[in-house]
Amino acid sequence: MKHTEIVEVLRLTNYGQTVTVCGWVRSRRGNKNVSFIALNDGSTINNIQIVADAERFTDDDLRLVTTGACLSATGRLVESMGKGQSVEIQAEKITVFGAADPQTYPLQKKGHSLEYLREIAHLRPRTNTFGAILRIRHNMAIAIHTYFHEHGYFYFHTPLITASDCEGAGQMFQVTTKNLYNLKKDKDGQIDYSDDFFGKMTALTVSGQLEGELGAMALGKIYTFGPTFRAENSNTPRHLAEFWMIEPEVAFIQKDELMDLEEDFLKFCVSWALEHCKDDLRFLNDMFDKTLIERLKSVVDTEFVRLPYTEGINILHEAIRNGHKFEFPCNWGDDLASEHERYLVEEHFGKPVIMTDYPKEIKAFYMKLNDDQKTVQGTDVLFPAIGEIIGGSVREEDYDKLMAEIDRRQIPMKDMWWYLDTRRFGSAPHAGFGLGFERLMLFVTGMQNIRDVIPFPRTPKNAEF
Amino acid sequence: MKHTEIVEVLRLTNYGQTVTVCGWVRSRRGNKNVSFIALNDGSTINNIQIVADAERFTDDDLRLVTTGACLSATGRLVESMGKGQSVEIQAEKITVFGAADPQTYPLQKKGHSLEYLREIAHLRPRTNTFGAILRIRHNMAIAIHTYFHEHGYFYFHTPLITASDCEGAGQMFQVTTKNLYNLKKDKDGQIDYSDDFFGKMTALTVSGQLEGELGAMALGKIYTFGPTFRAENSNTPRHLAEFWMIEPEVAFIQKDELMDLEEDFLKFCVSWALEHCKDDLRFLNDMFDKTLIERLKSVVDTEFVRLPYTEGINILHEAIRNGHKFEFPCNWGDDLASEHERYLVEEHFGKPVIMTDYPKEIKAFYMKLNDDQKTVQGTDVLFPAIGEIIGGSVREEDYDKLMAEIDRRQIPMKDMWWYLDTRRFGSAPHAGFGLGFERLMLFVTGMQNIRDVIPFPRTPKNAEF
Repeated sequence: MKHTEIVEVLRLTNYGQTVTVCGWVRSRRGNKNVSFIALNDGSTINNIQIVADAERFTDDDLRLVTTGACLSATGRLVESMGKGQSVEIQAEKITVFGAADPQTYPLQKKGHSLEYLREIAHLRPRTNTFGAILRIRHNMAIAIHTYFHEHGYFYFHTPLITASDCEGAGQMFQVTTKNLYNLKKDKDGQIDYSDDFFGKMTALTVSGQLEGELGAMALGKIYTFGPTFRAENSNTPRHLAEFWMIEPEVAFIQKDELMDLEEDFLKFCVSWALEHCKDDLRFLNDMFDKTLIERLKSVVDTEFVRLPYTEGINILHEAIRNGHKFEFPCNWGDDLASEHERYLVEEHFGKPVIMTDYPKEIKAFYMKLNDDQKTVQGTDVLFPAIGEIIGGSVREEDYDKLMAEIDRRQIPMKDMWWYLDTRRFGSAPHAGFGLGFERLMLFVTGMQNIRDVIPFPRTPKNAEF
Repeated sequence: MKHTEIVEVLRLTNYGQTVTVCGWVRSRRGNKNVSFIALNDGSTINNIQIVADAERFTDDDLRLVTTGACLSATGRLVESMGKGQSVEIQAEKITVFGAADPQTYPLQKKGHSLEYLREIAHLRPRTNTFGAILRIRHNMAIAIHTYFHEHGYFYFHTPLITASDCEGAGQMFQVTTKNLYNLKKDKDGQIDYSDDFFGKMTALTVSGQLEGELGAMALGKIYTFGPTFRAENSNTPRHLAEFWMIEPEVAFIQKDELMDLEEDFLKFCVSWALEHCKDDLRFLNDMFDKTLIERLKSVVDTEFVRLPYTEGINILHEAIRNGHKFEFPCNWGDDLASEHERYLVEEHFGKPVIMTDYPKEIKAFYMKLNDDQKTVQGTDVLFPAIGEIIGGSVREEDYDKLMAEIDRRQIPMKDMWWYLDTRRFGSAPHAGFGLGFERLMLFVTGMQNIRDVIPFPRTPKNAEF
């Protein structure tokens, strides 16, 4: 089925040659002498115009050429007189592969709401908006792999199904092959998992970090890029039950080098979008957010602020003294709310902030304790419009200090002997971060709802498609 | 923590300069005048030799420098007199980050069995064998993304949690947040999933193909690369409960172009390994399989055979007439057994075979029917040593023919309206294939057990780490 992709055809200049294109009809207009068919094959946001003269094509020939129909068109490439396009095809042959009944095709008219399009997520990739988003999504994934590959990291597949931390973890999805109609229980009435597929209770992972640390303690520099799950009943524009996460983990680096990595990596990704997704970003910029491209460029061109938490608190207190009102308190020791992060990033500094050295009580057990015994070496990146886009930290590599913190927090580690072994045998200074892929996608596309930057979102009460 | 990766240091030639390396001790030997420390940081299979003179380092200084310990070493780069290495480091300073008690460190001696290493999968990446395998695994993933990106495909994330095909599908893992101690049932005694997280019964996907087709019917060319799950109770060297799969799906191609894609793609991946994983492949070739590199080269250099199933049956019958014995029957209509595939690939042709046009009864409902009404356009790739490495097909794009097959097979499609919509609206000829990533890894590494080509295998009764 010889044909040329539309993204290629639009670059051709040797007018007069015969080309064949395939794609879906975006629109058809015209008059009794000629029909203009805008055809798109997904390779680019731009359509090729097919010109079908009435002399050659009867009304009946074009009866099925309606919005959404799929066809191939062969004809001469000619220079276009129309605005915004360089070439068009003077059709000699049109073959309809699949019609789209105008009475029932759900993408008939333009300008559907994003809410409506979520209900037809199986068809929305055929719209300009979702074509653009999905091409950008592809490019961001390629940027991520390219960055790590070129910097000597190894892509490390951590498991999705895990037996760690299952008991009492309310926010995980249980995975089972048990017959729920006939649950075996022991004499204390506890469900007996010995006949479950894995012989114990299992769940979907909430993070690959701990296994990622195992990789870094052998390969030096690894990254994960895979699905992650949270069973939080959060119906917000920022939460998905199934999302993709990137988690690099690096041996032999300290806090400053971790921050360098976070900043360099994010700038690389955003630069990649600006360079490889020009047409798609221009479309989203024009349709949804006139400041999108400007915002992306500002991140690339700016040196991120590196701000200890304690200094951040001082700045917020100064703002309050100067009359700024916040809804939530921000005393030393509080987890900052979105309003505080946004004040620092968008109002005070006007640029991305890497916040460091958080109070240990608001951070995870594995973060490296500072000499002050009060703060830990977290390094979260706060972005304009998004808030926290990266959560990073230096890890506590000292076995005794780590165990003391685990004991203090009464964390059940009985299934985690393998993690503690990294500190028992050949422990090394190391650090890493987690990036929610859809958070990055929100920033790069300017979309407001996380359901619109993943093909088929999983949210409470929704696992359609 | 300024240091240079060992893979870089081994390439240096400006002797006399001072360098710092970090890594894990693979071995230490020497005499009363000097210690030789083989250090590895995972960046390469090759170690750097650290030379510690007794004049500078006392026994006590080196007390913790035992196999498995993690340290940094600073010293002068000197030309090495030893065999198999170009440079070594004359140590001036050694800092031990983490010791590894020789009494308890599980990787003390060399030559552990692969079975034993599976029990310490958290530490096995520190061995030569698994370092090599995991670097190759990374490179194969990068090869796959590179191939598709350079050919204009878009990476498309299909969902892991699915509500499709759940009822009665015994080989899927159920995903639930229900309290199993208090299962709500309706008046007929059926479990009521309305209060489960997604409001219905859900499971882990066994394939992203159907959603991938949605992507291809909009973006033209997509591929998936993500985890896939099978709850089969198969404790074999070829089965994992959680594995990674690659599934490209392409609009506007036919059978011959699909086979071209399969062959070109596999050759690209194997070539990539030969080019980018030389040292690691050489190690695996020498340690496990002396014909490995030769076998990889033969695949790259050979034109794959394209063999209709019916012709394949004829060849097998001819072999039987000539005295070849098979355990299983191979009459027309039978699903070929591994012994038949291997006879064709390894004995009859001596090269990879793309088998086509299978009897429809042994293939899936979505495959395109040939005009003979008996065979479908499957295009599986059979490899030496591995058997089926790719399962591909042209998809039936005609709504009526697809529905007739679904009805004939009594496939429940009530949750699959979205899939059928692809054939209702703007249907297009399309085709695709599925490649089990670990199958490719078995071929490229020459390993015999699929548990040894993924960091943390999930198999019946095993979800450790």
